Amino acid sequence: MIRIGQGYDVHQLVEGRPLLLGGIDIPHDKGLLGHSDADVLLHTITDAALGAIAAGDLGKHFPDTDDAFKDADSKVLLQDVWKLVKEAGYTLGNVDCTVMAQKPKLAPYIDPMREQIAQLLETDITNVGLKATTTEKLGFVGREEGIAAQAVILLIKE
Amino acid sequence: MIRIGQGYDVHQLVEGRPLLLGGIDIPHDKGLLGHSDADVLLHTITDAALGAIAAGDLGKHFPDTDDAFKDADSKVLLQDVWKLVKEAGYTLGNVDCTVMAQKPKLAPYIDPMREQIAQLLETDITNVGLKATTTEKLGFVGREEGIAAQAVILLIKE
Amino acid sequence: MIRIGQGYDVHQLVEGRPLLLGGIDIPHDKGLLGHSDADVLLHTITDAALGAIAAGDLGKHFPDTDDAFKDADSKVLLQDVWKLVKEAGYTLGNVDCTVMAQKPKLAPYIDPMREQIAQLLETDITNVGLKATTTEKLGFVGREEGIAAQAVILLIKE
Repeated sequence: MIRIGQGYDVHQLVEGRPLLLGGIDIPHDKGLLGHSDADVLLHTITDAALGAIAAGDLGKHFPDTDDAFKDADSKVLLQDVWKLVKEAGYTLGNVDCTVMAQKPKLAPYIDPMREQIAQLLETDITNVGLKATTTEKLGFVGREEGIAAQAVILLIKE
Repeated sequence: MIRIGQGYDVHQLVEGRPLLLGGIDIPHDKGLLGHSDADVLLHTITDAALGAIAAGDLGKHFPDTDDAFKDADSKVLLQDVWKLVKEAGYTLGNVDCTVMAQKPKLAPYIDPMREQIAQLLETDITNVGLKATTTEKLGFVGREEGIAAQAVILLIKE
Repeated sequence: MIRIGQGYDVHQLVEGRPLLLGGIDIPHDKGLLGHSDADVLLHTITDAALGAIAAGDLGKHFPDTDDAFKDADSKVLLQDVWKLVKEAGYTLGNVDCTVMAQKPKLAPYIDPMREQIAQLLETDITNVGLKATTTEKLGFVGREEGIAAQAVILLIKE
């Protein structure tokens, strides 16, 4: 038995915040704004996993009005959701993600991000696809106002 | 045998129109503009279903230049397409959707929307994932000019 | 064994360039800007295929800083990636795409694009879903500053 899910998330790029993507701290003059650590890539994967098991969304599980999740580590949020996935009897088939960012260049960080994501999902790095694209200076991503990410996930029940 | 599909749709938010999402009438000071009832979530699911069986898109089946579809009930459009899916020999595996809206807060309406979608797709609510996200005030969604939705769908032939 | 992937790409619409979508030359007063031929639909499918086998992205395989890919034919890029997919032991289940463009009307070109994509992926046209949508005049697509495309792909290992 298999199920699929998808996720989409956006955070604002602002000065004075770290830029965390896929659990990796990426050198940049701006970072992502949010109640948690604002790791837009991990949020997207978390949402895709929740969607695949029809168990709500990030905002339902970790409300941004709840002080418990202030500056929360998105790695822990994903791990919490991954427990739900396993309790539902599923394991990862594969996940594939795209990060949309005009800057910085993400190529040097793709494999470290994949390693981190694979560890969180208790899978091999070969089951984690990760791509980066600019939006050719168009839209809020192109104006460097924010970074967006989307993902699809395939879950398998043995 | 399995197939996957995806959909993406956008409608403008304007005054003087109802806000229908997933077949549910949601209280808000604006609603979605369109030739039909402009239910962006049902349109996205309809497009994903059509895409999975490679049978064209919403615009091909229900042209917005055709008076027959003026103020059309998007629930009926999805049901018409679902007949095509079944005629092609498929049934739903699962569907997972994200609605992108800055306002209103959709959390209270998620489960009624899932119920309605499950009924239209003749499936159990546990096969309908639905998530909502803002775009953190960025882009046309963030400026409350419109609402977007996207979905992935998994079809199964027994 | 199956795997899924997704892709998203954007190119700017400018005067003095051809508009290539899905390998088809589409009459329009503007075209897509890019280092290669800027076929945003084929790029999206190429990225989805790479993502499904977790083999990087378009920018990794065909850097836009490399003169070898100046004005490159995106059909050839997709064919190169499709060789990798086959070497990894996979064949196409199905692919489903959405092109987001305010103009021109793409309906007359949908089937020729599907034919071309099917040929590149060595599959039957019935395995290629292709949909077009405007963004209702919203955002960079709605302002005709660019065209975006997204896709999901299902790969199968016999």
